Amino acid sequence: MKNLSDLTYGIVGFGLMGGSLGKAIRENVLSVSSASGKILAADINEASLSLAREQHIADETFLISKVDSMLCQCDFVFVCLYPHATLEFLIQHKNNFKPGSIVTDISGVKSEIFSRLNEILSGGFDFIPGHPMAGSEKEGYANSCGSIFKNHNYILMPLKQNKIENLELFKQLVSLMGFTRIVETDAFVHDHKIAFTSQLCHVIASALVDSAEDSKITAFGGGSFEDLTRIAMINAPLWTELFLANKKELLLHIENFEKSLNELKGFIEKNNASSLKSYLENVREKRISMSRIEVKV
Amino acid sequence: MKNLSDLTYGIVGFGLMGGSLGKAIRENVLSVSSASGKILAADINEASLSLAREQHIADETFLISKVDSMLCQCDFVFVCLYPHATLEFLIQHKNNFKPGSIVTDISGVKSEIFSRLNEILSGGFDFIPGHPMAGSEKEGYANSCGSIFKNHNYILMPLKQNKIENLELFKQLVSLMGFTRIVETDAFVHDHKIAFTSQLCHVIASALVDSAEDSKITAFGGGSFEDLTRIAMINAPLWTELFLANKKELLLHIENFEKSLNELKGFIEKNNASSLKSYLENVREKRISMSRIEVKV
Repeated sequence: MKNLSDLTYGIVGFGLMGGSLGKAIRENVLSVSSASGKILAADINEASLSLAREQHIADETFLISKVDSMLCQCDFVFVCLYPHATLEFLIQHKNNFKPGSIVTDISGVKSEIFSRLNEILSGGFDFIPGHPMAGSEKEGYANSCGSIFKNHNYILMPLKQNKIENLELFKQLVSLMGFTRIVETDAFVHDHKIAFTSQLCHVIASALVDSAEDSKITAFGGGSFEDLTRIAMINAPLWTELFLANKKELLLHIENFEKSLNELKGFIEKNNASSLKSYLENVREKRISMSRIEVKV
Repeated sequence: MKNLSDLTYGIVGFGLMGGSLGKAIRENVLSVSSASGKILAADINEASLSLAREQHIADETFLISKVDSMLCQCDFVFVCLYPHATLEFLIQHKNNFKPGSIVTDISGVKSEIFSRLNEILSGGFDFIPGHPMAGSEKEGYANSCGSIFKNHNYILMPLKQNKIENLELFKQLVSLMGFTRIVETDAFVHDHKIAFTSQLCHVIASALVDSAEDSKITAFGGGSFEDLTRIAMINAPLWTELFLANKKELLLHIENFEKSLNELKGFIEKNNASSLKSYLENVREKRISMSRIEVKV
């Protein structure tokens, strides 16, 4: 099997996520003295690329317009673009990847990519769809950080065409990068679950901030509001795309949430202390059992 | 003016909040070598009191049934009981506090207490209603911690009867304990604002956990769901009381939140990308301006 520290990694889109993946690889995979591996980065932002070279995160950088001369050198490529752009990139450049290389994406919605899988797969590289479950409310390479993946989940959606050894290599890589739980599933389950854990949470946080009477409300905050709405410092174009691309699943979860909220609201309206208390007791038990799973990882 | 390090502090209810206040006083106020002050603690839980003595947080402890022999010694009393119990305690023991002492509560809802203020104020002590805006999803003295107040808000609702020097002393005390912003307001504004920053957030977090399909969902979590629902490990009896005691204000905020959620949901349903994006951009700006206020403290 290939040695992870000797591979050439290519990262397309060197922003918050691409930059963080690059730093995590630099710090945890290419840090051994015998490493001959390299990180190549492509972006539209020259300043980010220049900073990445100065910080010795990227060995070589490429403007997106010259990305093909990067792709042909890479053993392992992370495409870290917005969902639509990821799909377009994979199709447009499918013949420019190094034959036999591993290529993955980090898109938060998979249905569109899977609907055009045949076009992507004709490229002769081993495409393994993935989703690193970590991020930040801050954007851009300057805010990237190699440790945001520590103790986080990585979701892989392997295809029947994927080579076993490539899948194993991928798992080894993300384990080294700090991910502690690798979940294998399919695109439908991914989109359904992520619509809940990620997109619904961003919808709720955004609506909560929208409903605030004014910005001075935090003078009365004790931490709860701040924790619930940190993700509302949202990247608007990205999340617009994510919400609409996963619309069906997201609306399903919004409606379930509205039902739960409505039941709770009803108990309050009717002064129904006993039902309210047992609703909250159930929620408490359910949430505690979820943290046990978090901790078990 | 009195010297804070020489006062005798009494804490009624030595659980998570009472214990944390006691620890913050021990660590930040009574830590000077010249201090002659003391901490007296009362609770129904003998094991907590015994642990508090062993840990040298409380100098003397009292079962609640013997609390009057504690109250008569204290210059500054924190009543850290549930809202109804706080009101009952203040009325029942109003003649047992040391004359001229400062007495405060930490209740998350004030309207009930204010509706019976005359009964409390006939006790001959200086009652200054307050609300330390910090907490934890964990309960009990064993989980208390003196540093949970660092950089948090303390809300005071001074009465026209309060002595200026007592109010000044109170502010000095909570500043030493780690609170960085002291907000002075009245009971109505408090209950209205707290219904949003605290109670609505607990309602939303609870409904979100309730709507989860199963407890294994955290395998697909990336931090957002976990952050939004940590407070759903909720103390059910306490929050049942808080929700119902502040029902009117809370329902108002739930309805405003539902309107905001519904607008956002509508844009998703209608594939209205431009309205969705501008909604999210507004939310982003609003939330960022809130963090500036957080940071400015």
